[in-house]
Amino acid sequence: MANHFFNKRNVDFLLYEVHDAESLTKHTRFADHTKETFDMTIDAATQIADNLMFPFVKDVDKNQPELKDGQVTVHPAIKDYLKALGESGIIGADFDYEDGGAQMPVTITSILGYILMAANNGMMFTGLTAGAARLIASFGSQELKDTYIPNMISGKWQGTMCLTEPQAGSSLSDITSTAEPLEDGTYKIRGQKVFISAGDHDAADNIIHLFLGRIKGAPLGTKGISLFVIPKFRLDGTDNDVTSMGIYHKLGQKGVPAMHLGFGDKNDDCIGYLVGEPNKGLNYMFQMMNEARIGVGITGASIASAAYYASLEYAKERPQSRRLNQKHALDAPQIPIIQHPDVKRMLLFQKAVVEGSLSLLLETSKFFDLSEASDDPEEKENAHLMLELLTPIAKTFPCEYGMKATSDAVQCFGGYGFTEDFPVEQYYRDIRITPIYEGTTGIQSQDLLGRKVPMAGGKATMLLTKEVGKTVMAALQFDELKRYALLLKDEGERLQKVTMHLLSIAGTGDVERFLSDATLYMEMFSLNVVAWQWLKQAVVAKQKLITSNDDTEFYESKIHTMKYFFHYEIPKTQGLATRLMDEEVLTIMTEKEIVM
Amino acid sequence: MANHFFNKRNVDFLLYEVHDAESLTKHTRFADHTKETFDMTIDAATQIADNLMFPFVKDVDKNQPELKDGQVTVHPAIKDYLKALGESGIIGADFDYEDGGAQMPVTITSILGYILMAANNGMMFTGLTAGAARLIASFGSQELKDTYIPNMISGKWQGTMCLTEPQAGSSLSDITSTAEPLEDGTYKIRGQKVFISAGDHDAADNIIHLFLGRIKGAPLGTKGISLFVIPKFRLDGTDNDVTSMGIYHKLGQKGVPAMHLGFGDKNDDCIGYLVGEPNKGLNYMFQMMNEARIGVGITGASIASAAYYASLEYAKERPQSRRLNQKHALDAPQIPIIQHPDVKRMLLFQKAVVEGSLSLLLETSKFFDLSEASDDPEEKENAHLMLELLTPIAKTFPCEYGMKATSDAVQCFGGYGFTEDFPVEQYYRDIRITPIYEGTTGIQSQDLLGRKVPMAGGKATMLLTKEVGKTVMAALQFDELKRYALLLKDEGERLQKVTMHLLSIAGTGDVERFLSDATLYMEMFSLNVVAWQWLKQAVVAKQKLITSNDDTEFYESKIHTMKYFFHYEIPKTQGLATRLMDEEVLTIMTEKEIVM
Repeated sequence: MANHFFNKRNVDFLLYEVHDAESLTKHTRFADHTKETFDMTIDAATQIADNLMFPFVKDVDKNQPELKDGQVTVHPAIKDYLKALGESGIIGADFDYEDGGAQMPVTITSILGYILMAANNGMMFTGLTAGAARLIASFGSQELKDTYIPNMISGKWQGTMCLTEPQAGSSLSDITSTAEPLEDGTYKIRGQKVFISAGDHDAADNIIHLFLGRIKGAPLGTKGISLFVIPKFRLDGTDNDVTSMGIYHKLGQKGVPAMHLGFGDKNDDCIGYLVGEPNKGLNYMFQMMNEARIGVGITGASIASAAYYASLEYAKERPQSRRLNQKHALDAPQIPIIQHPDVKRMLLFQKAVVEGSLSLLLETSKFFDLSEASDDPEEKENAHLMLELLTPIAKTFPCEYGMKATSDAVQCFGGYGFTEDFPVEQYYRDIRITPIYEGTTGIQSQDLLGRKVPMAGGKATMLLTKEVGKTVMAALQFDELKRYALLLKDEGERLQKVTMHLLSIAGTGDVERFLSDATLYMEMFSLNVVAWQWLKQAVVAKQKLITSNDDTEFYESKIHTMKYFFHYEIPKTQGLATRLMDEEVLTIMTEKEIVM
Repeated sequence: MANHFFNKRNVDFLLYEVHDAESLTKHTRFADHTKETFDMTIDAATQIADNLMFPFVKDVDKNQPELKDGQVTVHPAIKDYLKALGESGIIGADFDYEDGGAQMPVTITSILGYILMAANNGMMFTGLTAGAARLIASFGSQELKDTYIPNMISGKWQGTMCLTEPQAGSSLSDITSTAEPLEDGTYKIRGQKVFISAGDHDAADNIIHLFLGRIKGAPLGTKGISLFVIPKFRLDGTDNDVTSMGIYHKLGQKGVPAMHLGFGDKNDDCIGYLVGEPNKGLNYMFQMMNEARIGVGITGASIASAAYYASLEYAKERPQSRRLNQKHALDAPQIPIIQHPDVKRMLLFQKAVVEGSLSLLLETSKFFDLSEASDDPEEKENAHLMLELLTPIAKTFPCEYGMKATSDAVQCFGGYGFTEDFPVEQYYRDIRITPIYEGTTGIQSQDLLGRKVPMAGGKATMLLTKEVGKTVMAALQFDELKRYALLLKDEGERLQKVTMHLLSIAGTGDVERFLSDATLYMEMFSLNVVAWQWLKQAVVAKQKLITSNDDTEFYESKIHTMKYFFHYEIPKTQGLATRLMDEEVLTIMTEKEIVM
């Protein structure tokens, strides 16, 4: 059943053959782990995905949560899934031993997330809990840790992230929720938060909100924001005055309630507990942002994966028409549509996006692990820079290109794709939120160009160039790959030229113009990085084909898909570079505004 | 209210200033018409759109048709809209006087369709009826005409097109429905049809199916297909054995029931009436295809239009964050998001797609009118060639780029765009079907490259080059437009080079390879054609700005959007050309198949 939404062979290839996840076990933090412990965890996740998640894809979508009399009811299957994931230890698998975790590398937990979300992305509850618990584990007092983490990672309590406010949206500096210090060291909270995923539901015994607000008298802007833990129920079981003011009905991911919450709205009696120091809340949040963003990238890749395998299966079975060179053989049987070049192209696009994204996400996850836990200080520092650079891309590409891929999955089904008889219409809806979650594509792109590329004097981009160079060198060893190695080198130079041009605008101090087309820069940069991931996969495939007769078809398909990416996707960088080097300013407000 | 989904000023500009719809009235067929008769009809449609359609957008989507006990119930608002449109004479407005029409140019009825579909594309019933009635008007006997057309164009009876069968999909040569001649000249029909839009519902007194089937003993393939009229109820009111076997629940356009119908399934007693001659059914259908395809293009442009105006309004009102150059002025008020370059870019993209598509659809519609009714035989013949060439593009670009535009509308709303609190999530769902309706994008693209470009020894493409040349010459008169005129010329040459290359592959007889990337060729060709439409609009705007002080902002916005299209969209042709000139074959089946 697993192959309905992911391919285990591909997971093994990416994890062990391309990204050598096993090598992580030589570092102290992961020393207890082996390939066997990784595989056991992956198998456990696969079983939950197969048995408790995938069978409910449609049902969870069809029976969305409702808010009645202040209570949110979710699909009954959610409770079983939470229990199973809690018992399996997956929710907090990457946490420290002392926080109840298994010190599993994020490289592995990213794959767990991929399998679970590909099975049923409408069951997105545990990733949220893990993110919230991780904030407590990283910055909270021992008391907060002891109080909240065990029940969260066991799946009994739900965690949330309460950032967005109605008047502020993505502009976190405009947050106005307040926290008033009380004598006992706790805080009285007032404020409203919107779009809080899993912000309330009946499958958890308590909801633990990680909440951004301002302590009275704090400085304006982002420097005056603090982080609080706010439980729905206090430890003595009494109500903590968190009100479900509304539930959003959504285009997709309908299984997860998105809540409008009021804090202290009923009785002005909502108590919060400060995490870490005052006014450092956004700082803490940003330190957790990389994992959250990788998580959204995983979700994009997962949904595109489920759509890809559904359309692939259909295209192999659905007969229609004849090959174009045999159009007039009217009595010949119809052929499966995968044999039509236009359908094959759409399937190759999906495969290239799904497997390219997943490879990038694992690369990024591995840098995460090394940045946290490498025993070699230099490797650790470099990994941190690479993580910072790759994260906005690993968040954006799987979501943006994943949307296109999912749309192509619908197209492969023709009219049937538009109906509820097949799952792809749902995936098409579900994935639409991913370029908005955790910083929109516009925000990720400004982060990439405005912060990550220039940081540390451009050191991260130099490290990336070096990493890509290694892959180019390895590819040059194989005649069949030479052409692509040289292409990737040229593309790197094209990107560098564009980067220099944009940085020269930054040098004038005109930040607005510097960043005005950051989203196009993101696309160009992403295509480069994913091409690198594909060449990397092709090098490994080539090595395997030479040394063994096993899995020949699998490896050949990898090389073929790499070629697809270079021949069909990489040419897009030409037009992007043209625009990015272009001096004409059309989107920036001037005194004489264009009326639309 | 109208500006919530379209802009009347823009309609007037395109219709009268750019495409000179009034000039059509010099031809005999349209001689009774004047700008006043056009405007009166447009006003009538606008009133219906404003009062009977737009107010029900969400409600029609939320209360989708259901099939119960063999009966299909649609939203009660459908009946009022059908009645109003029937009474207004809009359904058959372009029909001959003798068939009850007003001999209105299709250039005008396309605008009516745009306004109506932009108001509420889930009320897509009358376009279907008009298409079906038009087949009877064009090829049916006087008896069939008298029997069916009056009740159809008055909105009392619904018309449908019954082409697709479960086992054949887009492959019409594989249709297997049968028609057995009876002694009285009628036919006994057996077969099943799927995806029949408005195939049954309770807002019409009768449903008139235009049906493709094979008379027993007819030749294989497309040459053995005949066209029949099959009413749900016979003239004496008795049941004609057409069964609603199922209703599809869909991603979007939920107001229109998509039916699975059985003919003769209950009692083997379904009677059909032959339209025209036997075995010419597909021929007839194809002769009506241009209008149907323009109609789908209109639907794409309409949905994108409604999404654009919704997101534009939101972007003007929603405050968030500060300009990037003033990021640190924390106490400054937040600015409307339209002032952020990334949002402005997404709005300009939508505007460029919506207004560029509409201009192309009017250009194509005008060629339709001239091909039908020009008093000048040479103009008539040339118009026919232009119509044939432009139709697949006018069907595809507004739908494919319209999908992207609608997705950008969602993005402009951020998280709110994903919720049912705003209309864009619905438009995002609705528009997804348009690249599938009436021949998928893949099929349109094969039509463009495989049939239309080579037809008549390439005469159509030469005519197009000449038309574009006229616009280029006009644009060269204005300093500000010179650059874009030259760009368009260069783009035309790039396209020609690609075309020559592809035709040289066709010359080898390898049709499959020739057409394997037709979809990419379509995108490249479309970008050229829409750039032409934008330059054409800019030329008119420039002329108006010189001669008058009225509407300065409107015309300047047109020139600005033209620039957007040339600076942001046209560069995409570079990568497309690279791929289309590339020799590497990756999507065609070979003996050693790539396993996916």
